[in-house]
Amino acid sequence: MADKAQIQDAIKTQGEVVRKLKSEKASKEQIDEEVAKLLELKAQIGGDDGKNQFVLKTAKGTRDYNPRQMAIREKVFNTIISCFKRHGAETIDTPVFELKETLTGKYGEDSKLIYDLKDQGGELLSLRYDLTVPFARYLAMNKITNIKRYHIAKVYRRDNPAMTRGRYREFYQCDFDIAGQYDAMIPDAECLKIVHEILSELELGDFRIKVNDRRILDGMFAVCGVPDDKFRTICSTVDKLDKMAWEDVKMEMVKEKGLSEEVADQIGEYVSMQGGMDLAERLLQDQKMLQSKQACAGLSDIKLLFSYLQLFQVTDKVVFDLSLARGLDYYTGIIYEGVLTQAGVAPVSNEAQNGAPAGESVSVGSVAGGGRYDGLVGMFDPKGRKVPCVGVSIGIERIFSILEQKAEASAQKVRTTEVQVMVASAQKNLLEQRLRLITELWNAGIKAEVMHKKNPKLLSQLQHCEESGIPLVAILGEQELKDGVVKLRVVATREEFDISRADLVGEIRRRTSEA
Amino acid sequence: MADKAQIQDAIKTQGEVVRKLKSEKASKEQIDEEVAKLLELKAQIGGDDGKNQFVLKTAKGTRDYNPRQMAIREKVFNTIISCFKRHGAETIDTPVFELKETLTGKYGEDSKLIYDLKDQGGELLSLRYDLTVPFARYLAMNKITNIKRYHIAKVYRRDNPAMTRGRYREFYQCDFDIAGQYDAMIPDAECLKIVHEILSELELGDFRIKVNDRRILDGMFAVCGVPDDKFRTICSTVDKLDKMAWEDVKMEMVKEKGLSEEVADQIGEYVSMQGGMDLAERLLQDQKMLQSKQACAGLSDIKLLFSYLQLFQVTDKVVFDLSLARGLDYYTGIIYEGVLTQAGVAPVSNEAQNGAPAGESVSVGSVAGGGRYDGLVGMFDPKGRKVPCVGVSIGIERIFSILEQKAEASAQKVRTTEVQVMVASAQKNLLEQRLRLITELWNAGIKAEVMHKKNPKLLSQLQHCEESGIPLVAILGEQELKDGVVKLRVVATREEFDISRADLVGEIRRRTSEA
Repeated sequence: MADKAQIQDAIKTQGEVVRKLKSEKASKEQIDEEVAKLLELKAQIGGDDGKNQFVLKTAKGTRDYNPRQMAIREKVFNTIISCFKRHGAETIDTPVFELKETLTGKYGEDSKLIYDLKDQGGELLSLRYDLTVPFARYLAMNKITNIKRYHIAKVYRRDNPAMTRGRYREFYQCDFDIAGQYDAMIPDAECLKIVHEILSELELGDFRIKVNDRRILDGMFAVCGVPDDKFRTICSTVDKLDKMAWEDVKMEMVKEKGLSEEVADQIGEYVSMQGGMDLAERLLQDQKMLQSKQACAGLSDIKLLFSYLQLFQVTDKVVFDLSLARGLDYYTGIIYEGVLTQAGVAPVSNEAQNGAPAGESVSVGSVAGGGRYDGLVGMFDPKGRKVPCVGVSIGIERIFSILEQKAEASAQKVRTTEVQVMVASAQKNLLEQRLRLITELWNAGIKAEVMHKKNPKLLSQLQHCEESGIPLVAILGEQELKDGVVKLRVVATREEFDISRADLVGEIRRRTSEA
Repeated sequence: MADKAQIQDAIKTQGEVVRKLKSEKASKEQIDEEVAKLLELKAQIGGDDGKNQFVLKTAKGTRDYNPRQMAIREKVFNTIISCFKRHGAETIDTPVFELKETLTGKYGEDSKLIYDLKDQGGELLSLRYDLTVPFARYLAMNKITNIKRYHIAKVYRRDNPAMTRGRYREFYQCDFDIAGQYDAMIPDAECLKIVHEILSELELGDFRIKVNDRRILDGMFAVCGVPDDKFRTICSTVDKLDKMAWEDVKMEMVKEKGLSEEVADQIGEYVSMQGGMDLAERLLQDQKMLQSKQACAGLSDIKLLFSYLQLFQVTDKVVFDLSLARGLDYYTGIIYEGVLTQAGVAPVSNEAQNGAPAGESVSVGSVAGGGRYDGLVGMFDPKGRKVPCVGVSIGIERIFSILEQKAEASAQKVRTTEVQVMVASAQKNLLEQRLRLITELWNAGIKAEVMHKKNPKLLSQLQHCEESGIPLVAILGEQELKDGVVKLRVVATREEFDISRADLVGEIRRRTSEA
């Protein structure tokens, strides 16, 4: 740990940075980032600085969700869960931490990003890094050989957070997987159908689903002359093609990974290819590809996959893209990724609809990804028995970010409650009457609110309705009580009607039935 | 860490214990418990035992939820969330871990049960112990002075698990809290109304809601002659009265905590009192109680509370019980606890309905608890500004256990999916036709399944429906395709109808509209 005086100096300097940015009216993101650094420095000296003051913040890379964000989150989850349920998925849940050894050896280099728990006696534990490894552990432990399940839960990665771009250390994954020995490409095609349904229903703008196969990549590397032991590392270089130009990727292959220029250029030719079933057919005629049995098996499966995707009516968005690699080690077959394309930049051309290259599309970012992993469950089975699996993970955090920005930009208010009616009074000393009335409403299943004050002002009761979007107010006064009625006010139009007490529940239901 | 040979010996011995229990056909719980110990021992030597075998288990005190358990959990959550929403609550979410210092000094002795994360560089973090402290941190950090929110999430305690009784190290809390400066007892009464609604709607059998006030306890201790510095420790001894006889509690007060017999007996007299508003009125006449201003303030508030509870129509289940203490330090006023009473043992007598003692009731366990904590938010505010809060936490794990046992005991099957129809074929080579049909159904929003095989047997398709409770099967055959119809089979009655393709979606909707 750094010396305390050093930290206090750093706090001073950082404080000046923040003040400067503020005085220069820098962007909110920039200021937030520097404030975060400042708070972190302050956290390091914590309660020791004499003032015994708490550092009021959440852990680095994490955030609270406020009610507004939760309302958006709930909508997104509902859309996704409806889709999973429409496809007949069950759901499971697993603990947030696993035995450390359960996660060991599953994530390659990314293992360094795993959060470990402190050894407080007992087992060594780690926070889950994804939902796939716990799923495989669950299948092996319970000897389950086939299941279609979804799992929505938070996972943890000690990564460099970039919160303004939706990258956190604590974030949700929404996984759908099909485990079981089935006929080729049928479950795989259903996963792609699900990505298509979800991205369409969330109305995030245009998207593409890129498809490739690990066997095609491996076969291609082999026929291009990449040494066996370099497949994985070259694969992760190829994976950078969505962020880097080919020239830079090639440089990395040659300078860092030691390929010859010639080999790299051959790879370059293949990874520039995009298309549909026709591309798979063309490559099955390719003299070089034909040398690899693996590649041919993958290409035949891509063909079969596209035939099912046609039946599912989703080929308009699916592109067979030889540059798609995906990082994780455990994939064994088909891999895919859903990416949003900037609206306007990538119109759905006829070409793309026919499965031909959608070359001009600029990918805004991956919002779904997955593939086939036939070996993972076997790693947990004492006898190595395999359970073939294919699945997809929806990248919910980036979707939240987009929908949050959309909601902020639009004039429409996001409601954070579902309250149908506010029970209010126009005069003093009617608390008892308000509580009686709201009890009637609650007991009838009406969502209702009442102010927790003895004598609230009518204006503040009405204001609360305006602010939180409550559509109706049931107003009690001496006269209404005498007449056995309630004055029902429609907040939007300010109309008021006297409704008999007996009809009130029905009237509220009728007026808020679409809510 | 113990020596490896020692552990291997322990494994051997424990293995024999398990084998012996199994041969004696001991209860499943007993065997499970000993197997858990065995697995834990094995985990300690982990992959080092030469066989390189994974220990297939979840972390101690945690569990997976299978689809059946998830279906029950979803139902319970829906009931609880509906209630929270009916009362106009918003929801928030906070990260699973907090800065360690955020949790420091909030839980008294229980702090030792907090899970810390390993120091991997950066901040020191701990898993949240409850949802109340993160809520208070959230309010202070965002300068929120009034909100009505619920939060459903997992919390973590390194406690001794007793999983057969629903006590876990990872478990859900369902919290509802009202923060803000309001008139006395109105929000408090709403919290009790919520407990009443939830426990009624979950149909867990009869229940009581015990109510007391920290100020009454403190005042009572004062007038009985307990020294100021022993209030908290005597309070936690009183808290054991629901599990221990008075004689044992008295012994602890005298022998361990150093009270005189006389003082203990005076406490004993008070803590045996149960009642309703009448008891509060009686105690307000009690010469000894009158000496404590605090106690009188508490008693007046209990009276006021009962008057609101009458308006909310929930006094039938609420008992003012002077033995209720509750462990946590942060309560400052009213406290309460919902307990299930064994069915049959505790009929709702007229006495109890009038608020008089329900003495014979045997409490099966606390399933809800909460109270007022006016000082907690101020602990996080740099200037110590207070935000009064009152809330309740629903003890969902015990409720799950009860409902799981109920479901197991009942003949009724728990469905784990909501699939309305299975798309099946009676003959071979109809995969393409099945995929076309299911696409029509999915696109129309019907929940539908299809087997991922090219040529599944009709019998196995029908069996799957029987097992998983799918009510309808849409069967395709050569004849149906020729006629432009689908054979719709009702699984329960085995009836079959030919439905024209155009009418199929409507027919499925009509027949499954209550599902």
